[in-house]
Amino acid sequence: MKTPKVPFAPLYFKNETLYLLDQRKLPTREVWVPCRTSVAVWRAIRTMVVRGAPAIGVTAGYGLYLGVRKFRGTPAGFQKKLFAEARYLDSSRPTARNLAYALERILNKVSLHQAKHVEHLKKMILEEAVRIHLDDVLICRRIGRFGAGLFKRGSRILTHCNAGGLATSGYGTALAVFYALKEKRIPFSVYVDETRPLLQGARLTAWELMKSKIPCTLICDNMAASLMRAGKIDGVVVGADRIAMNGDTANKIGTYGVAVLAHHHGIPLYIAAPSTTFDLKAKTGKDIPIEERPSHEISHVQGKQLAPTNMKTFNPSFDVTPHALIRGIVTEAGVLKAPFNRSIRKVAVLLKGK
Amino acid sequence: MKTPKVPFAPLYFKNETLYLLDQRKLPTREVWVPCRTSVAVWRAIRTMVVRGAPAIGVTAGYGLYLGVRKFRGTPAGFQKKLFAEARYLDSSRPTARNLAYALERILNKVSLHQAKHVEHLKKMILEEAVRIHLDDVLICRRIGRFGAGLFKRGSRILTHCNAGGLATSGYGTALAVFYALKEKRIPFSVYVDETRPLLQGARLTAWELMKSKIPCTLICDNMAASLMRAGKIDGVVVGADRIAMNGDTANKIGTYGVAVLAHHHGIPLYIAAPSTTFDLKAKTGKDIPIEERPSHEISHVQGKQLAPTNMKTFNPSFDVTPHALIRGIVTEAGVLKAPFNRSIRKVAVLLKGK
Repeated sequence: MKTPKVPFAPLYFKNETLYLLDQRKLPTREVWVPCRTSVAVWRAIRTMVVRGAPAIGVTAGYGLYLGVRKFRGTPAGFQKKLFAEARYLDSSRPTARNLAYALERILNKVSLHQAKHVEHLKKMILEEAVRIHLDDVLICRRIGRFGAGLFKRGSRILTHCNAGGLATSGYGTALAVFYALKEKRIPFSVYVDETRPLLQGARLTAWELMKSKIPCTLICDNMAASLMRAGKIDGVVVGADRIAMNGDTANKIGTYGVAVLAHHHGIPLYIAAPSTTFDLKAKTGKDIPIEERPSHEISHVQGKQLAPTNMKTFNPSFDVTPHALIRGIVTEAGVLKAPFNRSIRKVAVLLKGK
Repeated sequence: MKTPKVPFAPLYFKNETLYLLDQRKLPTREVWVPCRTSVAVWRAIRTMVVRGAPAIGVTAGYGLYLGVRKFRGTPAGFQKKLFAEARYLDSSRPTARNLAYALERILNKVSLHQAKHVEHLKKMILEEAVRIHLDDVLICRRIGRFGAGLFKRGSRILTHCNAGGLATSGYGTALAVFYALKEKRIPFSVYVDETRPLLQGARLTAWELMKSKIPCTLICDNMAASLMRAGKIDGVVVGADRIAMNGDTANKIGTYGVAVLAHHHGIPLYIAAPSTTFDLKAKTGKDIPIEERPSHEISHVQGKQLAPTNMKTFNPSFDVTPHALIRGIVTEAGVLKAPFNRSIRKVAVLLKGK
């Protein structure tokens, strides 16, 4: 099985090696990091060499294969090793639902074939990792097509963080909407929130949109309110890291603030995410774990100290947008609308049956 | 006349020289910039060596003196020079009302004594500049006392940008409230918005509060919404650059967003500002000019490139918070409440009579 070429794909697998584009170094440098072990993959996810919920999921799939690739022993020992590696990779970051999804999908696949030879199981695991990868690409295309239908000519659309090709296996979720609009030759423009602290908007979304020649303007996160008040934003599209069954959505920190502001100004906000982002076990946003990240991400930018030494910070990586502030959730199965507990359940049932 | 010692005073005048603390280099370096000409003062204001509406006003007062200090010629020529220098200094930045206030106050003073000898007028101008400086110190103390009355023990207060000692002649406006609370030994804590793009919160407010041993936590601007939703913010206090007669308030970009969020969560937002911030000629916020600043302030931080080369940005330095989102305006004459067009007019009339 070969992995396809997709715009802004942040990863590819070749010669028993997972290559990850180091997203911390963009946009000024394009560096590819080879990962040959699950430890290398774990570290790449934790330190955000790779980020974006769907991309993390695909990465973890290959990571699981790399974790068991050199195993020598009994089938029972292999199963033990496989579960241990899955638990290990699952601990790399807590919020993205797609991480657990990819690992569970591979474990489920293997559990149906426990009696097989270890080498055969290894091959099966790699094949499933590639299938997760290929599915993600197709899903992104579908999200883009459904999302593009929501915007009319001349729309000025705000996005937060990077739900682009780089956050997926290529093409993106929120940014898939933009790429699909461009393919349909519908004129539009984008405002990009820089997205502190790690500046995924300024570094990654800006980079993708400029390379795609999509008209875009970079703003600081705190400027979106002004633009909305001035009537310069027609809609908001963002990605998601995990969506509860009632529609409450965890996404990059700042999304909730954007959602309140959009609501205040009567501007629709859409979430664009694959159905693998739904967490069947999370009834509401309260059931979603929110990662807190290190202080230096706020106090320093690219090694430069901004705040006084020893300044205390609070650095949650995500926030939860309550479903009441969301106009629709754009998935590969269509645009889900309120009441979300009903519309999400329909898609989630399909998902469970996969 | 001597200028008093005040915590975090960003300026002092000595030996015919205005010394400005270079606020761009804080918190890692404390560098004082000597200004001996109005050109040096204009540049210091424009490039934000000194910032904060009240501090800009006081600086401009001394700048006007420095602009005419070496004048040799007739009284008529002196008047002409004086007005030209005032116009020049007024052009340094567009939004802060206190800048025009200080210049007008000196021009008014001199216009009453046109017949006097040029050297006598020069002395009078310096005296008035010092008086503006001293008034600012007293006003800040009064704002602090009135503002402290708004918060009970244990309050967790959010502030945006730096309306501290550094933004005034010392002691501050929004931060004056904190210093007064501390003097009254009322326990409280502060969340500090880092305030992109120039990070006055992370660099200046954090620095002042840490030096004052006030419990404080630094957050990125896009994190305030999460804290509000979690019930961790009891009130918001910010400064102002210009206040229209209906209470609409221009302040550092991001203030409007914070105001909408506070409103959505039922949290009171207070403006703390001297009455010199009221603009008698601005009926509403629409009459307030909003400065746009250079692109590199967003695309770069301390010389480090964040965004792709040639990325288009939008960089308004201020926004306007409509009066309906403001619970009260803390001035040296007390806390003004809605209807603001009435309460502000009362204070403004006093001001006109000065």
